[in-house]
Amino acid sequence: MDSIKFDFSTVNRIVFGARSIDEVPKVIDTFGKKAFVIRSSQAMGEISLTDLMASANKEYIIYDVKGEPSETSIIKAVKVASDNHCDFVIGIGGGSVLDTAKVVATMMTNKGELMDYLETVGKGFPVRNRCAPNLAIPTTAGTGSEVTRNAVIDIPDKKLKVSMRSTLMLPWVSMIDPLLTLSLPPKITAFTGMDAFIQVMESFVSVRANVMTDSLCIEAIKKAAIHLRKTYHHGDNITSRTEMCFVSLIGGMALANSGLGAVHGFAGAIGSIFHAPHGAVCASLVTAVMKVNVSALMKRNPNGEALTKYQEIFKMITSNQTATYKDGIQWFIDLCGDLDIPTLKKLGVNRGDFPEIVRLSKTTSSMKANPILLVDGELLEILELAYE
Amino acid sequence: MDSIKFDFSTVNRIVFGARSIDEVPKVIDTFGKKAFVIRSSQAMGEISLTDLMASANKEYIIYDVKGEPSETSIIKAVKVASDNHCDFVIGIGGGSVLDTAKVVATMMTNKGELMDYLETVGKGFPVRNRCAPNLAIPTTAGTGSEVTRNAVIDIPDKKLKVSMRSTLMLPWVSMIDPLLTLSLPPKITAFTGMDAFIQVMESFVSVRANVMTDSLCIEAIKKAAIHLRKTYHHGDNITSRTEMCFVSLIGGMALANSGLGAVHGFAGAIGSIFHAPHGAVCASLVTAVMKVNVSALMKRNPNGEALTKYQEIFKMITSNQTATYKDGIQWFIDLCGDLDIPTLKKLGVNRGDFPEIVRLSKTTSSMKANPILLVDGELLEILELAYE
Repeated sequence: MDSIKFDFSTVNRIVFGARSIDEVPKVIDTFGKKAFVIRSSQAMGEISLTDLMASANKEYIIYDVKGEPSETSIIKAVKVASDNHCDFVIGIGGGSVLDTAKVVATMMTNKGELMDYLETVGKGFPVRNRCAPNLAIPTTAGTGSEVTRNAVIDIPDKKLKVSMRSTLMLPWVSMIDPLLTLSLPPKITAFTGMDAFIQVMESFVSVRANVMTDSLCIEAIKKAAIHLRKTYHHGDNITSRTEMCFVSLIGGMALANSGLGAVHGFAGAIGSIFHAPHGAVCASLVTAVMKVNVSALMKRNPNGEALTKYQEIFKMITSNQTATYKDGIQWFIDLCGDLDIPTLKKLGVNRGDFPEIVRLSKTTSSMKANPILLVDGELLEILELAYE
Repeated sequence: MDSIKFDFSTVNRIVFGARSIDEVPKVIDTFGKKAFVIRSSQAMGEISLTDLMASANKEYIIYDVKGEPSETSIIKAVKVASDNHCDFVIGIGGGSVLDTAKVVATMMTNKGELMDYLETVGKGFPVRNRCAPNLAIPTTAGTGSEVTRNAVIDIPDKKLKVSMRSTLMLPWVSMIDPLLTLSLPPKITAFTGMDAFIQVMESFVSVRANVMTDSLCIEAIKKAAIHLRKTYHHGDNITSRTEMCFVSLIGGMALANSGLGAVHGFAGAIGSIFHAPHGAVCASLVTAVMKVNVSALMKRNPNGEALTKYQEIFKMITSNQTATYKDGIQWFIDLCGDLDIPTLKKLGVNRGDFPEIVRLSKTTSSMKANPILLVDGELLEILELAYE
């Protein structure tokens, strides 16, 4: 066994549980006078911001976000926050909203322009100061963005998505209230839930996995195997919604410290060419990646830790201590059927673009964390298997 | 099953592994110009501060700490840091040094006097601002103080130990380099290692345990059961030292979020009357507490989660899926024998003080987290069992 070695970063404080939203006033008490509240308008559900801010005795302005964060949308948000002399940030929404909030909070305490801090397209300067106080409140159970330290930003001019990345971008507090996810429709529940489930599995078998991320992922994999189906079929089941919020949280904590794998490598590449929901793309690929990964490991690294970890996954998801590789794969085929997961073809992915998808996927950090280096033939095989 | 609910705080970044100390210059790069280095002189071992600070291009002054933090010693340290215009803190040592460092870093960014922030003896004001940048480097594997958010301070005038406590006191980065623990003598290895082992077990069965702390503790309990003996008998075994450093880290992360139990409740009470090493007191009590706790649970809460968790512990430590309660107790008796753990009598504890120890122990936060409320007769029984 390798000796333990890791560099693990996460948010200082995680407040988790039904009705934790009631704690907002206490949590933001020391954050400053005026809040910049970033949200997607449809994500507010039951929350009365007016009431929360009144009982916290804070001023605030609201900033609505639509779609994924882009260079333009972020520059505009930063300007509004600055013109209004806001002291801190609250993000309420899905991954796009929380990513925007992380960048705005970071630009509030760091000099210069957004471009100074972007990799690839910008100057790639390191962030120097911890972001302004930032409370992240997710309203989906999927990305775990409330505890990751990067934001993906669209640069339409260059047809690129780039990351801004720093430990100093981590929100000050993440607050996960499962009641905010109760109204998610089944389709979004399935896609975001599959994303979360895949994140804890890919983190677990990643080449950069460590004992800290493993300890967290094991419990989360067991929970996802039981509760993802339940949230899809019974969206009002608070217990299952809560468990899936936990899976999503752990996915974010783990992936930020261990990286992911081929599913997310492909999803990044596909997402930069086609406009399909990220979770759906991930879900369409999971069984094929697992098949090809296990088969490659059996051939080229049969005694390694990764194959043992896949066996552990198969035992956990099937609750069967003698589950074989075939049992595990069949379990995922059944799950995807049950959740009505589309094929790549149905998602609008073009077979003619497979070579380009393979090429792009190999440049992603996720693909580099896959438990085994896959050759081009294997990468194409995954896309073919997931195609129809 | 209860629905998941927790409030989990920890440090932003944990750098763990052999030779991680080499990363100090990179880690403190953005921390400011001048370091206030708090250490216990004997704990420096292999570290050349001069080299580290030179390659980090930082000024620094060194402040030696002796014994546990007291009101006087902390006020003095804060003054020296302020007179020397230090921007940030590095603590290198055991729990006392890291506790001192946490308080000094907090007083550097918060107005007023130490007494303003102390519970019981002072004004108990909440800390308002995050502490100054603080890098915590433990040199023992025991307390987990590098990731806890309080410091225990001795007030000799009042014959009291009180806590200063706030999430804002958490170090900015904890760096755990197992090589720094290689030279610990066997006796200290046994006492501090037992403290760490007991912390992950008490956190696991605590009434305030949650799925986040449980996920972390399970792996740590298994590791402690294997590696504590090895570090005692073969102090130069780097793998085992590394594993026990991980156990200690997880103990700190867990206890800060779940509380402990009767062993630490008693140890707090005994520590305020007698001068015996904390880890030794904990070790002398562990078997007796386990016996009385299990017996009380069997009588008064036989179907609760706590008893199931004790059974899980017994299975994990014995590596035997059919381990009984007796097997578990016997395993601890053997461990304590093997590690030459002293009795309370040998540690200088007076039988005549048992009633006072019981009375004091009931006021501790640890005793309140014990998996079952113990009556005075049971508390006395524990002390009698551990006495000789």
